Amino acid sequence: MVKRSRTFEPAWRDAPPGGESYRSIFMYDTDTVKHPGAAWLTIVKKAFGMTDADFKQRKQEGDEKVVLDKKSRLSTDQVSRFTNIVGEENVQTDDYSRVKYGHGKSLDENIELRRNRVGDVPDIVVHPRNKADVQTIVAYCNDQKIPIIVYSGGSSVVLGLRAERGGVALVLGTHMNKVLTVNDVNQTATVQPGLMGPDYENTLNNAPELFGTKLRYTCGHFPQSFAISSVGGWILTLGSGQESTYYGDAYDIVLSQEYITPAGVIKTLDYPGTATGPKVNDIMKGSEGAFGILVEATMKIFRSMPENHQRFAFLFPSWQAAVDASREIIQGEFGLPAVYRISDPEETEIGLTLHGIGNTAWDRLLILRGFLPMKRSLCIGTVEGEKGYAKHVKKRITKIARRHGAQSLTSYAAREWEKSRYSEFFVREDFLDYGIVIDTLESGVTWDNLDRLYSAVRSQVKKSPGVLCLTHASHFYPQGTNLYFIFMMKPEEPEAYATFRAEIIDTIVRHGGSLSHHHGIGKLFAPWMEKHLGKEQMNVLKALKRHFDPNAIMNPGGQLGLDGEENPVP
Amino acid sequence: MVKRSRTFEPAWRDAPPGGESYRSIFMYDTDTVKHPGAAWLTIVKKAFGMTDADFKQRKQEGDEKVVLDKKSRLSTDQVSRFTNIVGEENVQTDDYSRVKYGHGKSLDENIELRRNRVGDVPDIVVHPRNKADVQTIVAYCNDQKIPIIVYSGGSSVVLGLRAERGGVALVLGTHMNKVLTVNDVNQTATVQPGLMGPDYENTLNNAPELFGTKLRYTCGHFPQSFAISSVGGWILTLGSGQESTYYGDAYDIVLSQEYITPAGVIKTLDYPGTATGPKVNDIMKGSEGAFGILVEATMKIFRSMPENHQRFAFLFPSWQAAVDASREIIQGEFGLPAVYRISDPEETEIGLTLHGIGNTAWDRLLILRGFLPMKRSLCIGTVEGEKGYAKHVKKRITKIARRHGAQSLTSYAAREWEKSRYSEFFVREDFLDYGIVIDTLESGVTWDNLDRLYSAVRSQVKKSPGVLCLTHASHFYPQGTNLYFIFMMKPEEPEAYATFRAEIIDTIVRHGGSLSHHHGIGKLFAPWMEKHLGKEQMNVLKALKRHFDPNAIMNPGGQLGLDGEENPVP
Repeated sequence: MVKRSRTFEPAWRDAPPGGESYRSIFMYDTDTVKHPGAAWLTIVKKAFGMTDADFKQRKQEGDEKVVLDKKSRLSTDQVSRFTNIVGEENVQTDDYSRVKYGHGKSLDENIELRRNRVGDVPDIVVHPRNKADVQTIVAYCNDQKIPIIVYSGGSSVVLGLRAERGGVALVLGTHMNKVLTVNDVNQTATVQPGLMGPDYENTLNNAPELFGTKLRYTCGHFPQSFAISSVGGWILTLGSGQESTYYGDAYDIVLSQEYITPAGVIKTLDYPGTATGPKVNDIMKGSEGAFGILVEATMKIFRSMPENHQRFAFLFPSWQAAVDASREIIQGEFGLPAVYRISDPEETEIGLTLHGIGNTAWDRLLILRGFLPMKRSLCIGTVEGEKGYAKHVKKRITKIARRHGAQSLTSYAAREWEKSRYSEFFVREDFLDYGIVIDTLESGVTWDNLDRLYSAVRSQVKKSPGVLCLTHASHFYPQGTNLYFIFMMKPEEPEAYATFRAEIIDTIVRHGGSLSHHHGIGKLFAPWMEKHLGKEQMNVLKALKRHFDPNAIMNPGGQLGLDGEENPVP
Repeated sequence: MVKRSRTFEPAWRDAPPGGESYRSIFMYDTDTVKHPGAAWLTIVKKAFGMTDADFKQRKQEGDEKVVLDKKSRLSTDQVSRFTNIVGEENVQTDDYSRVKYGHGKSLDENIELRRNRVGDVPDIVVHPRNKADVQTIVAYCNDQKIPIIVYSGGSSVVLGLRAERGGVALVLGTHMNKVLTVNDVNQTATVQPGLMGPDYENTLNNAPELFGTKLRYTCGHFPQSFAISSVGGWILTLGSGQESTYYGDAYDIVLSQEYITPAGVIKTLDYPGTATGPKVNDIMKGSEGAFGILVEATMKIFRSMPENHQRFAFLFPSWQAAVDASREIIQGEFGLPAVYRISDPEETEIGLTLHGIGNTAWDRLLILRGFLPMKRSLCIGTVEGEKGYAKHVKKRITKIARRHGAQSLTSYAAREWEKSRYSEFFVREDFLDYGIVIDTLESGVTWDNLDRLYSAVRSQVKKSPGVLCLTHASHFYPQGTNLYFIFMMKPEEPEAYATFRAEIIDTIVRHGGSLSHHHGIGKLFAPWMEKHLGKEQMNVLKALKRHFDPNAIMNPGGQLGLDGEENPVP
């Protein structure tokens, strides 16, 4: 919308990372990376008191070749055994593979790799070809007490893949990555766990050609990590897609599953509803690799009707007005929007600037009308479903938004958001090249506790000068929503950020927010689990852990707080 | 609609049961009992070759005073301890109370009581006043290894309340039966477990007067047992209400819960969404008293908008047409009906007769139009929600039904059904007085397995001559539905029915139906659990059982198949 004179542009990195470099591990492997624009640059310069001079020299880019000074814990015999199971071509023991498949996408891992520091990694990387391979490997590892950590999309931001005790990184994305069947009658797809988001969605969209179905389908699950995450990962970490308000969370869209655990194979049955005791199918979800290995899942799928897709965007005079309107919308029983997202004033300002609305004539008009900077609140969304339904939902939303003082921004802002819905977080690398840290925390919260949690986190954040904190709510339920906090800062040393983050997590738990809404727990949040859930709930999870994994070989070393130093498996 | 000459009417029983009689235990304690009409009489006479003479003498009415020839297993000291905890007025050890609170509403218990036969019953009946009482009782019983069985609504039809090993019947409906708070912001109600359906719904409907809320609410859960079942029972047995297609099953409408178990208090937190490992809140649901005692629950509630309530009814030319249309409706993504029910041809004929349509001019017209007896299929339903939404859903349903050859019956049939929605099963007593047995089984099933399961059960049923089998599907999901089988027969001896039922259950399990869709498992279905779920899933449930209840005091003796003779808790 707005033209700026580009007097200066940082030397953003365009060169791809070298073949076996640290950078090749922490960089997102995608073609869609876009460098931060001029608007972004203005924002961060102002926020962190930076000048053009600070953007002249990239630092700690991690271009060095990976060198691992860590001997394998496995004997030659053990390595041979894995080779015998899956074939030589599916086993790696080289330094680079061990480091690559031992890392997720957390900020912590990123910063460590940029400094060429490598913590605990697996001793061997194994790419199973099928269920039978997995079963043989689990039996062998259980016998030999060799840890197993499953690597699928590799997008964990919570140290979920850290091999605290070495062992095997079991890579499911290499071979076990297919849609096996699409069932037109039940509206389900049976898939392998290593199936990546885009492959899944493309297959469903083209199901008539590929599986002879009558209709086209959609998976309904579109997390920001869509391009780099797998269906198995969605289930195991309890993910939420950007359209979860309509389609449900990952938890809701799994009909049945098959797991291989040290305690045997758990294969749940295909029932739309059942009353046969506590649901083992649900117990397995969110187990983050600590109980067993998901080898197959039957997912609920949805009719693909892109022709009915519509967008909306509003500006509310205040965050409170946006929250109130959203609650009325979500509780209104007229159907639900798909994407639905409200930004707090700080995120709204940045959002308006990035979407090209800030500082335009349009913006000045909005201000004149009472939509004041650092007060106003941006809302964007989409509707899906059958034509009349989608139309009705949009109409009702518009009516309620207006009653709460909102001004329509047409569908422009939503369209802008859609363009970068999966790539927004890729700017992280460019900023980190210049020492600027971006990280996120998110928390589930009931409506009546939203303001308390929001205020508490904001005031904790503002104790640290020079931190940007962008907040939005993006997954809505009749009983509440989530708060998604994006932090940007330029710490002297990365350690300062870790301290800052721990204080925010403390604040979230103390003020009744969920420890995680959709990122999972991994080993990063595990130390807070008992404080959050209480000893009794943790004991239930530990009892399950002992049942499934008596030798503590499944993602051991603190995953979910089930067997860490402080929580040894008896 | 239709007038019949009433040449004969059986002497249906009008006298209420005597104060301490067996009949007072198995009879439904309700004012809404209506005797079977002439149409019913014609149907059963024809089906079972009965004449007026067979309806002259009622048999085994169970009017005798309860006598229990069973010494209490508890010592005087133990009884005193309970008296000390809850007060003398809240403890009963008399024969009648022990029998009353040791029985649910299964056909098996009914027939036993009619014959003055009493199996295992509790040794003592205790009415706790609050959570603290429950906690003290659980601790004491765990120490003394005294079994505890919770009695709330007492409507179990699966021997869920049978005190196989004696012990305490803990009656929650006496004191712990209130709505504690209604939260207008979160749309939740916090309730005690012994709260009965009608009390809950009335309180929510009148929340503005009782709790000062802005809006009126509904609980959204209306099982046929609504009048005689409790909120705690809904959760613990995974019930489904008649409007579950819109509001969800009991499983779906529980936000958080508090349980007292031998392993401590499990109090889950109020989050609309969370990704903090396997959900303990869900693990507790469906535990049928085998893990611990639910003492408080926060339920999701819904806006009460009776002004938008609408009904519809259709006649389809065939069961297959009804099934196909229903699937298209439920998968259509235009919103969902609330009540939605399709009857198979056998149930349709009886339904049309009972609703006064069969054998009328209207009926003859329908037949002329090709809706043939024993082919055609009745569909009734309602819509709820916001006005425009409800209207749109009804419009779309009508359109799809018509495309599948349906003829509208106006809202007449649905209105007729609504009148008896909670009392339909009360005719059971009148028929049993004359030796006619009515019982039900129900099963969850995916769309692609529906025909196979339906056909298998029908052919198994028809191996026994003189059995009526009415089938409907009444809880719909995008991935499938349930089949609800109503059996009527006049066996020489009740044992013949038990054999018949076991064969049907075998058939259901063998043909991929869920062992229970919404009645739970209790001790009646427990012997099938391992065959149904498999050893590995049962081992998970047993591991949880051992964790929560190491001394096997919580509803022991086979509940859910977790600690029966064949499944001892180690």
